[in-house]
Amino acid sequence: MCCVGLETVNGTTGEGLSLNIQERKQLAEEWVYQGKDKLDHVIVHVGALSLPESQELARHAADIGASGIAVIAPFFFKPTNKGELIAFLQKVASEAPAVPFYYYHIPPLTGVKIRVEELLDGIKEQIPTFQGVKFSDTDLLDLAQCINKNEREQFAFLYGVDEQLLSALAIGADGAVGSTYNYLGQKTNLMLQAFAKPDLALARKYQFLTGAFLNFVIKLGFGVAQTKAVMTFVSGIPMGPPRLPLVDASEEFILKAKAKLDSIVWPDGD
Amino acid sequence: MCCVGLETVNGTTGEGLSLNIQERKQLAEEWVYQGKDKLDHVIVHVGALSLPESQELARHAADIGASGIAVIAPFFFKPTNKGELIAFLQKVASEAPAVPFYYYHIPPLTGVKIRVEELLDGIKEQIPTFQGVKFSDTDLLDLAQCINKNEREQFAFLYGVDEQLLSALAIGADGAVGSTYNYLGQKTNLMLQAFAKPDLALARKYQFLTGAFLNFVIKLGFGVAQTKAVMTFVSGIPMGPPRLPLVDASEEFILKAKAKLDSIVWPDGD
Amino acid sequence: MCCVGLETVNGTTGEGLSLNIQERKQLAEEWVYQGKDKLDHVIVHVGALSLPESQELARHAADIGASGIAVIAPFFFKPTNKGELIAFLQKVASEAPAVPFYYYHIPPLTGVKIRVEELLDGIKEQIPTFQGVKFSDTDLLDLAQCINKNEREQFAFLYGVDEQLLSALAIGADGAVGSTYNYLGQKTNLMLQAFAKPDLALARKYQFLTGAFLNFVIKLGFGVAQTKAVMTFVSGIPMGPPRLPLVDASEEFILKAKAKLDSIVWPDGD
Amino acid sequence: MCCVGLETVNGTTGEGLSLNIQERKQLAEEWVYQGKDKLDHVIVHVGALSLPESQELARHAADIGASGIAVIAPFFFKPTNKGELIAFLQKVASEAPAVPFYYYHIPPLTGVKIRVEELLDGIKEQIPTFQGVKFSDTDLLDLAQCINKNEREQFAFLYGVDEQLLSALAIGADGAVGSTYNYLGQKTNLMLQAFAKPDLALARKYQFLTGAFLNFVIKLGFGVAQTKAVMTFVSGIPMGPPRLPLVDASEEFILKAKAKLDSIVWPDGD
Repeated sequence: MCCVGLETVNGTTGEGLSLNIQERKQLAEEWVYQGKDKLDHVIVHVGALSLPESQELARHAADIGASGIAVIAPFFFKPTNKGELIAFLQKVASEAPAVPFYYYHIPPLTGVKIRVEELLDGIKEQIPTFQGVKFSDTDLLDLAQCINKNEREQFAFLYGVDEQLLSALAIGADGAVGSTYNYLGQKTNLMLQAFAKPDLALARKYQFLTGAFLNFVIKLGFGVAQTKAVMTFVSGIPMGPPRLPLVDASEEFILKAKAKLDSIVWPDGD
Repeated sequence: MCCVGLETVNGTTGEGLSLNIQERKQLAEEWVYQGKDKLDHVIVHVGALSLPESQELARHAADIGASGIAVIAPFFFKPTNKGELIAFLQKVASEAPAVPFYYYHIPPLTGVKIRVEELLDGIKEQIPTFQGVKFSDTDLLDLAQCINKNEREQFAFLYGVDEQLLSALAIGADGAVGSTYNYLGQKTNLMLQAFAKPDLALARKYQFLTGAFLNFVIKLGFGVAQTKAVMTFVSGIPMGPPRLPLVDASEEFILKAKAKLDSIVWPDGD
Repeated sequence: MCCVGLETVNGTTGEGLSLNIQERKQLAEEWVYQGKDKLDHVIVHVGALSLPESQELARHAADIGASGIAVIAPFFFKPTNKGELIAFLQKVASEAPAVPFYYYHIPPLTGVKIRVEELLDGIKEQIPTFQGVKFSDTDLLDLAQCINKNEREQFAFLYGVDEQLLSALAIGADGAVGSTYNYLGQKTNLMLQAFAKPDLALARKYQFLTGAFLNFVIKLGFGVAQTKAVMTFVSGIPMGPPRLPLVDASEEFILKAKAKLDSIVWPDGD
Repeated sequence: MCCVGLETVNGTTGEGLSLNIQERKQLAEEWVYQGKDKLDHVIVHVGALSLPESQELARHAADIGASGIAVIAPFFFKPTNKGELIAFLQKVASEAPAVPFYYYHIPPLTGVKIRVEELLDGIKEQIPTFQGVKFSDTDLLDLAQCINKNEREQFAFLYGVDEQLLSALAIGADGAVGSTYNYLGQKTNLMLQAFAKPDLALARKYQFLTGAFLNFVIKLGFGVAQTKAVMTFVSGIPMGPPRLPLVDASEEFILKAKAKLDSIVWPDGD
């Protein structure tokens, strides 16, 4: 288990699916360019409802030197079985034949519930660049079976339900990709260190505290727009407004969320 | 009540959301061009997850002389209240300020359940081109209230759940837009005529029989790919394969569906 | 098509499943006793999660001379196919072999979505007392197929989604059973008369107006407790408090609901 | 963290809600009688849709000397907020004022999604006998917050989603109650021991293997009837047939499930 990552470029937090194709390309280029020598990995989300659009984005990501591409399951017309989903993913992956490929599994948003452990059987024959999964679901039976099937450790399983990362680590997840880490990344890294020792009591303390914050904001109404507001007040870097259909977090949300975050006493004395 | 319409260009049956933007433009152009002097209305679906993409398609539809545009609610990030949905739709509609605007309401696919009768309140102030709704839901309470609020008959409410059109007509729907009418349009027109007399017993007979066919194919697994297969064997015009994630209807489906359709004895003796 | 009925004894509005078995028996006895020579039919709901309890209630209903029994699908453990559901219903019906049997189909509450038209095939062989269905769902394709299969008119299909009764009548429903008719029964009878003529425009007007009331109270939060409050202020007969987990309708609800109902101008000039 | 428990008497696996009240009492009596000096705890599930029935069962459990009672949320009429749920639970608990009280939280079956961490606030004032929760849900954020709020360790949180117990242990769950432990209890105890050391790699191995079995049978169709079949072939003690609407597991299921279980090679060399 390695590390906590930022969100994928053009992923959910980046509102990639709310951008048009030119904007997606431009943003990917900027990340690759700015990330040179600074970021280990720049993974670009190239999923789209339209297969040719997704393929175009995959070719573009390869051209600009992205270190990986990720694809969400199409979710207007939904694949109804493994074969249909693999066929779609394969057509995208094959446009970037030298770029590691990640499947972005997020059934609460897509409604596509095909189990990942089924997908893994024989996937390397169909998608030779397959490298792993961003797993954003609470079905930890499925995740555990994925990890178990991955004996030669060829694949990475990055967990995406930030509020229960510790539970995923316990069954062997490799790390995490999630929006929370944009503002609680340092604390989460301390949790990972505690887990690695293992000092479960300390790890649990960190998970409790990040959970307490998330639990609080979820009750206020917490989505990508609110995430951006929190990132802004934590980092001091303005994230800009979200795009419709999302609308700006309210002033009231920002005040309450900030007060809550400031009130948390972390184990390291911060 | 006027008529039964073909599907909207680039709508669900046309797999509009599976096309890239160039393909969508090209298809819209072709329909407008070919439809000149033949079709009363060519309504182009310009909805997209991305607002700028939807706006670009709206401008294009206006440029080529489409007689209307339709927009589905965005459904990755979902509007959570009337204000957010209207704001999105308004930004699209205003790019084609001389083109009648239709909202495409299909909560079983989008998960956006904002009631249409709420949307209607004051909609003309915000979207002066607003012209009506394609209503694809079984909540007929909502539809009835929409119709009731529309006393000056400025708006059209076209029903999209083909298997229960007669029930929508009973409460005052203006007509229908649906994929079934591509192959059962003539029978449905006979149902409309019977309803207009009114000869409810005869109308009911037609609804029963189209329902019997749909009920049969739904059990076999019925989606857009299967609809295209039925359109092909009914019209003799090959509709071509669907695009991934959809896959071709099976031979078995086609045989069974054709046998079922052929076995129906219609009231007019066909 | 015959008539609008009161709710079934011990049905949803009567909170039958919130009573214990002694209370259910007592209430059924009272209805049968009080209804003698006044009510055409006293149908007793005898459904329960426990089969022996349901059987005991069926025997009791037969003993006291109920004119019919109705059974909801069990919904903790849910039947997953037609065979399991029929087996359960058959075991109850056979305890009252001389009493007409009705199936109470309400998938929004039970989650049991087995299509009724499938149940009907061969049902008389397994449940000789089978007499019909209270159909409380918006899937009018299913309802239309049921009616269509019922050519010899042996069965009754009573519609239970009050706010769209007219749509069910249009496809041939026999009548209605629903809580709304406890306070809007007279208006609904006028709708039925208009529909029978047929004067669809007038029927539609009544459906619009009852719908307008329901639409209004649904937004306020409308369940069985609120239904009882409305029944109380309309009839002047106190319905008593609901039982936990239901709680009394608020004063605010009652004031608003009463004002709304009073504000409606009916076609007959009331 | 203590131990892995058998299922609650008259709980889900025991089909308690499929029994009538006399049967439930008889079964509870038998367990208390047979368990004397053998079982540390006999917790009786006394939940029911009907409040007086649940109260009667609570009084009975107290009379026979049960060591605890558990109550599921009512799920036909569903409590819609904390107040309504607590009011219902309180009315049951107060009938057995000297008996420890457990809330049985299982939203996938009840549809009651009121967060447990909200329930806990002030619960001792309203239900002085409150002792803990059987938590059968995958929302581990909620569970973690419950555990965190329970600083004085007055309450027990027993996890009920067997296939991801290790993940619940990681965040501090006290133990488990689930049907799996009836046939994989020994293996699960070895997992608990490994976790306590902590030897996470070994604990994970056990969780993987029990998960592999569950994953396999879930695909075959796995419910309470199938659980009983597995318990029968593992223990040699016939569990008897399930009651309708459940039906016996098929011979094919039993053969496949047995072969799968036999094929597992456990770390202890069995």
